Amino acid sequence: MTGNNLAIALVHHPVYNKHHEVVTSALTNLDQHDIARSSKTFGLDRFYIVTPSEEQRKLAERISGHWQHGWGADYNPDRKQALDIVRVTPSIATAVEDFQSGFSETVKLVVTGAATRPGSIALAAFRTLLQDPEQPYLLLLGTGWGLTDECFASADITLKPIAGNGMYNHLSVRSAAAIMLDRIKGIEREDT
Amino acid sequence: MTGNNLAIALVHHPVYNKHHEVVTSALTNLDQHDIARSSKTFGLDRFYIVTPSEEQRKLAERISGHWQHGWGADYNPDRKQALDIVRVTPSIATAVEDFQSGFSETVKLVVTGAATRPGSIALAAFRTLLQDPEQPYLLLLGTGWGLTDECFASADITLKPIAGNGMYNHLSVRSAAAIMLDRIKGIEREDT
Repeated sequence: MTGNNLAIALVHHPVYNKHHEVVTSALTNLDQHDIARSSKTFGLDRFYIVTPSEEQRKLAERISGHWQHGWGADYNPDRKQALDIVRVTPSIATAVEDFQSGFSETVKLVVTGAATRPGSIALAAFRTLLQDPEQPYLLLLGTGWGLTDECFASADITLKPIAGNGMYNHLSVRSAAAIMLDRIKGIEREDT
Repeated sequence: MTGNNLAIALVHHPVYNKHHEVVTSALTNLDQHDIARSSKTFGLDRFYIVTPSEEQRKLAERISGHWQHGWGADYNPDRKQALDIVRVTPSIATAVEDFQSGFSETVKLVVTGAATRPGSIALAAFRTLLQDPEQPYLLLLGTGWGLTDECFASADITLKPIAGNGMYNHLSVRSAAAIMLDRIKGIEREDT
């Protein structure tokens, strides 16, 4: 599992709020659990939680710590394994810097959102790009009302949104992360 | 969307706890939100929450009601649309009875779990079965440590577990529901 070339970053800043203002969103306990479990299930070994708030970073560390070292580690060892891949960082740049250390190729930033944007590629195409183990990709997931336009503008790759089969498309970030990981890393188990 | 032949039931009883005892698990607020949003996104019009506890059913109704009629309905209309498909029932049988009313063919029960069981079919095969609009299927999702063996024994169809690409496979029920819905109802959006 060393040098897995895909990592996820759950971004709490810069994101929009309901009024399209740039804010720092609050940590959600279950985002941390669910996305860590999904990331671990699909073979990732890095899940960054990005927030500039020192207090919120301490909270994120405390949540992971409870299941890594505390009572939770004995109660639910599977949860420990998932939370072991969590790294808490103050910015997207520090997450990139940490992830970069294992690779010679420059980390590429990958973004996704609920709206379709020009030049975006399908998840199946991104799956193919991941076949090159030398090229690291950091997939940014926005919280709140989504990543800012600046995040999209500075990204190397924009993924097409996950399509349901109707007009309604309002997945939670936890559900969207699970579906994306399945599409880019999952296999259909055909053996019994 | 009338007569959609797939519905989901999130089952809080009968399920196992950590010690393999049959229990009624507690409602999780975010299960209700996330699975309703995923179900709505993938075109379902029924999401049953099954618990024999009257108090827990009232709680589930209150959670939906807050976003349907209360302050939440104005604040977040998208959430209202998702929670409108929730139906709270005391047992799997009452969920089946409600779902059955729209169809002449008998509702088939579909189950899934983290372990592979003999005779289980792939999600892709289930997707094909769903093409027959006359045949209704109720997909049971277990909470806690999973649906009881009796649920598996009485089911018409058992789905293969979602496979990550390693030994670790501990998705939350919210993430598993999202991935299953995507695999059986989702499309890869190729247009820009």
